[in-house]
Amino acid sequence: MENTIIYGKNAVIEALEAGSREFNKILISQNSRADAKIEKIKELAKEHGVIFQFVAMQKLNQLIQEGRHQGVIALLSPVKYIELDDFIENIGGNVVILDGVEDSHNVGAIIRTAVCAGIKGIILPSRRGVLINSTVEKTSAGAVNHISIIKVNSLTGAVQKLKENNYWVIASDHHANDNYYDIDYSDMNFALIMGAEHAGISKSLLKLADFKIKIPMLTNFNSLNVSNAAAIILFESVRKKVKGEA
Amino acid sequence: MENTIIYGKNAVIEALEAGSREFNKILISQNSRADAKIEKIKELAKEHGVIFQFVAMQKLNQLIQEGRHQGVIALLSPVKYIELDDFIENIGGNVVILDGVEDSHNVGAIIRTAVCAGIKGIILPSRRGVLINSTVEKTSAGAVNHISIIKVNSLTGAVQKLKENNYWVIASDHHANDNYYDIDYSDMNFALIMGAEHAGISKSLLKLADFKIKIPMLTNFNSLNVSNAAAIILFESVRKKVKGEA
Repeated sequence: MENTIIYGKNAVIEALEAGSREFNKILISQNSRADAKIEKIKELAKEHGVIFQFVAMQKLNQLIQEGRHQGVIALLSPVKYIELDDFIENIGGNVVILDGVEDSHNVGAIIRTAVCAGIKGIILPSRRGVLINSTVEKTSAGAVNHISIIKVNSLTGAVQKLKENNYWVIASDHHANDNYYDIDYSDMNFALIMGAEHAGISKSLLKLADFKIKIPMLTNFNSLNVSNAAAIILFESVRKKVKGEA
Repeated sequence: MENTIIYGKNAVIEALEAGSREFNKILISQNSRADAKIEKIKELAKEHGVIFQFVAMQKLNQLIQEGRHQGVIALLSPVKYIELDDFIENIGGNVVILDGVEDSHNVGAIIRTAVCAGIKGIILPSRRGVLINSTVEKTSAGAVNHISIIKVNSLTGAVQKLKENNYWVIASDHHANDNYYDIDYSDMNFALIMGAEHAGISKSLLKLADFKIKIPMLTNFNSLNVSNAAAIILFESVRKKVKGEA
């Protein structure tokens, strides 16, 4: 089995609870103080028949050189990517498309927020930006296990397919005329495209968008982090839905 | 002069443009390709009489061991903290209070979003959570230079002082009954309290809040990143203001 590594107490608990991943083993630091979360990990591991071992802190430090593992690392099967066709036919629902987002923390934070906002799929291009790695898993706080991760060779092709399947395509673009709160998010399924941190959304994708939206600011310092921008837009769709405005 | 280090092209450009910091010098990698941003840094440095030196990439790597410096590091005076009294008397406006937020990326992202949302001050406790460090500066994309950074010994004391000065105190708390979009953000100045990533807001502060608000979610995966939660709330205040709803 090819392994991926996840680390941190919450990420490991999430993955165990989600039950969609095949665990090789869990490594726990001998020096960890026995706290409620470590106990929970041990219980869940027993329940799911997952091996756990106590190892020297040094071993964990070797495996995770950046980021805080909090004394817990799991080796498990990589996140399963699914095909867009499969998603549309068998799962469905709103999606977020990441067009070249390169920072793993941002990708992880967007996935986490997307799950909270009821988004069902994340579409990532196979050749631009990051795919799911340990940092994305960690930053997502386990949200990668609660959403379909769709990897596509061509974002343009994916957007065309979504449009053929009655998705509204919304592009976040700070040159847009319309504000993010003036559109209707609930009439049909939507696909929200978020662009790369500096370059924004590629022109070929922008052309395909049904709506281009911006987030108005109160200052000239016009520079939202992409995960915060995604959060603002996605939770406006939630607000409208909960309030029954749309 | 005691120095702090900032790194990354945008962060250095922002700090030069903001003009509120005293630069010791700027180090640029000899291996940097001459791009528009490096040229801009050199121009701004000349304009402001700041020394810049070309050094081996290795030297930059030694100074910044985590994070990407993009071939540019600046040594400059630390961010100036100001007193709350001074802020209230001479500056004023809405503030965000960070009660023990420990992740530098989150603090930086919140400051960046706060500036975009027209917030005028960030209040940090001197003994809990992080203060402004290189990672915060970097993640804020230079926003630390566009907002008052207020360091206080007691958050409780700070909140009491704000209340005496007619601030509404709003606490983000996922046990709250009220939704974040149902309150009025514009009647008076507001102080929004965001809590630590796991522990939330301390009880003594929660007690002082005039409003406790939550962000309703569409799933059971109830776990927004603190910077995304702050973005959602702050931009609801912007939305209401721009739309004239409040």
